[in-house]
Amino acid sequence: MISFSIIKKSKKSKARLGILSTPHGDVETPAFVGVATQATVKTLTSDEVRTVGTQLLIANTYHLHIRPGEDVIKKQKGIHTFMHWDRPMMTDSGGFQVFSLGFGKDHGTGKILKQKRDLQITDGQQPQHIKITDDGVTFKSYVDGRTLFLGPQESIHIQQKIGADIIFAFDECTSPLADHIYNAKALQRTHRWARTCINTKTSAQALYGIVQGGKFKDLRQESARYIGSLPFDGFGIGGEFGDSKQTMSAMLRWTLQELPETKPRHLLGIGHIADIERIIKTGVDTFDCITPTHYARHGYAFTSQGKIDLKKSEHRNSTRPLDPHCSCFVCTTPYTRSYIHHLLKAYEITPLKLLTIHNLHFFNAYVARVREKIKKGLL
Amino acid sequence: MISFSIIKKSKKSKARLGILSTPHGDVETPAFVGVATQATVKTLTSDEVRTVGTQLLIANTYHLHIRPGEDVIKKQKGIHTFMHWDRPMMTDSGGFQVFSLGFGKDHGTGKILKQKRDLQITDGQQPQHIKITDDGVTFKSYVDGRTLFLGPQESIHIQQKIGADIIFAFDECTSPLADHIYNAKALQRTHRWARTCINTKTSAQALYGIVQGGKFKDLRQESARYIGSLPFDGFGIGGEFGDSKQTMSAMLRWTLQELPETKPRHLLGIGHIADIERIIKTGVDTFDCITPTHYARHGYAFTSQGKIDLKKSEHRNSTRPLDPHCSCFVCTTPYTRSYIHHLLKAYEITPLKLLTIHNLHFFNAYVARVREKIKKGLL
Repeated sequence: MISFSIIKKSKKSKARLGILSTPHGDVETPAFVGVATQATVKTLTSDEVRTVGTQLLIANTYHLHIRPGEDVIKKQKGIHTFMHWDRPMMTDSGGFQVFSLGFGKDHGTGKILKQKRDLQITDGQQPQHIKITDDGVTFKSYVDGRTLFLGPQESIHIQQKIGADIIFAFDECTSPLADHIYNAKALQRTHRWARTCINTKTSAQALYGIVQGGKFKDLRQESARYIGSLPFDGFGIGGEFGDSKQTMSAMLRWTLQELPETKPRHLLGIGHIADIERIIKTGVDTFDCITPTHYARHGYAFTSQGKIDLKKSEHRNSTRPLDPHCSCFVCTTPYTRSYIHHLLKAYEITPLKLLTIHNLHFFNAYVARVREKIKKGLL
Repeated sequence: MISFSIIKKSKKSKARLGILSTPHGDVETPAFVGVATQATVKTLTSDEVRTVGTQLLIANTYHLHIRPGEDVIKKQKGIHTFMHWDRPMMTDSGGFQVFSLGFGKDHGTGKILKQKRDLQITDGQQPQHIKITDDGVTFKSYVDGRTLFLGPQESIHIQQKIGADIIFAFDECTSPLADHIYNAKALQRTHRWARTCINTKTSAQALYGIVQGGKFKDLRQESARYIGSLPFDGFGIGGEFGDSKQTMSAMLRWTLQELPETKPRHLLGIGHIADIERIIKTGVDTFDCITPTHYARHGYAFTSQGKIDLKKSEHRNSTRPLDPHCSCFVCTTPYTRSYIHHLLKAYEITPLKLLTIHNLHFFNAYVARVREKIKKGLL
């Protein structure tokens, strides 16, 4: 089980400082959550993840169900022992894959999807590669083509075997192209599944409900009110929040004000550096994002001077660390920009790890400074 | 400069215990030398390389000349600062690339080459992609197609800028398919180049001459006598030594007995686990090999029970470490076989590093035990 105590509420915003206590230790919130989809933060070992200040990791139920399978993890005494991570851990429910492997596969995600805003998905439409019914979702495994069914009961059973401290209810994450009718229907499914998840769970793990509703204020608020009324231990906010950063803030504010104030809120899959203060000011306690690890593997470092592309020839002879203000192992050694540039151009694996360490440290240090700001009444 | 002292000579074999002292510290010999071709041990950071007991690294002149270029490394105050490795370091001369990018590219290397033993290369033949003359070798860069010329002077100039503790003379490493006539002519070039290297070097770096001569006893002995008579600080043994392990031992013995006993000998690019005792018994002091790192990146671990393929499904549920007798960080944590198997099947980068750490530790520990055996008069 978990407990959550709010230490301070900001007077300037909805931001709050808190302590999220789990069987594997405490998390100072607001906190950035590292992504360990397949039971590893890509390129790192768990002990390296500890050194960058990561307090909490999130792994993925869908991916771990496919590979290695929850029974393998259970035989290794659960995800903590399996990956040698002794701090708090969450598993996402697989609900995001209903989008990413469904309409997300049909229309693309991220920037590609943004170019297709004229497309509209409405009630009755099904994605090409998966099938969504009121009982759950039928997938095909990308490993061996085998048919897989994931519904609220299946997701909870799998998450119980994986054994994270915090698990999520199974939901339908809708496409940003889905219209109001589609979202309204999907929301009913998500709400029904939320109740099933609560009734299915037999473990002592904490269970977070997930608020959906797409970009529609009425649905978001309806969802927050309903999910917030159920006996969950905390709440995830899933899906998308409109096209602009401003819209996102407004939508988050409307949503969060409908949730019980005393319980922790996790924003699923959002957390670019530019978003972090905005998100925290709406009252989000934890949030996960692949940004630092994903960009690291593409040769980018986040620094106090902005994001830099280490593949660029301007770094060829630079004796500077990635960020002179950073106290991470890479910047203090320092492995220079010149060295990291060389290793990237030479297609070595080592720099992907160096950049992952730096970027995660940078994100965690950034959020630690935001916590300080809240403490000092500056945010 | 370096110095070499022999602490003990075996009475059972030609093996010897020694201390190779360099400006970056001492190496207990016999020693396994880690391969850092492009200024990194693949998948690791230099501090990780320190933790696995590696005493000495070898980088490659040809590869570093192409990328990032020796001037970049010189601007970073040399290879030690560039890659943050504070222990002894060697650079190979580029002579091996005369084979690997020459006839090696035409006929393959390793097992592929072994199937072509009926082919014969004789005097006057040139490989397709490079041109070998008495002055040096003309290559085309694999990065940008630019023509590159490497001769004894060029190799020494580059190695001086890279700044390792020990550098090697530029030689022609011949193909195992080259006949006696080809090897005899190539040997004259290699010997002439050896003198040019000695005359070119102006730095305080130690310079090793390289003995060649292919699989021919008379040429090997001629080469050892001649190279051994020149004022080198140590000697590299390059090229191949016939088809079988037995032939290799005999050839090495014939060769090494012609070299001055008081100077260190480095065997270039050979060192499978099964070869190590045999090599050391002939009087080799240091040897480098890609075996532990290469196999790691293909999912294999060397253990006290032999080489194991972690991709195999038999490891799916194994709670065992890679090797219960191993004291490396991976085996003592332990990251289990089950976890490493999962990460390999999931195409993660992390397990390549875990296996590299284990394999290098295993090789270094193996050689440390061989040193103990010599000390105790058992080898």
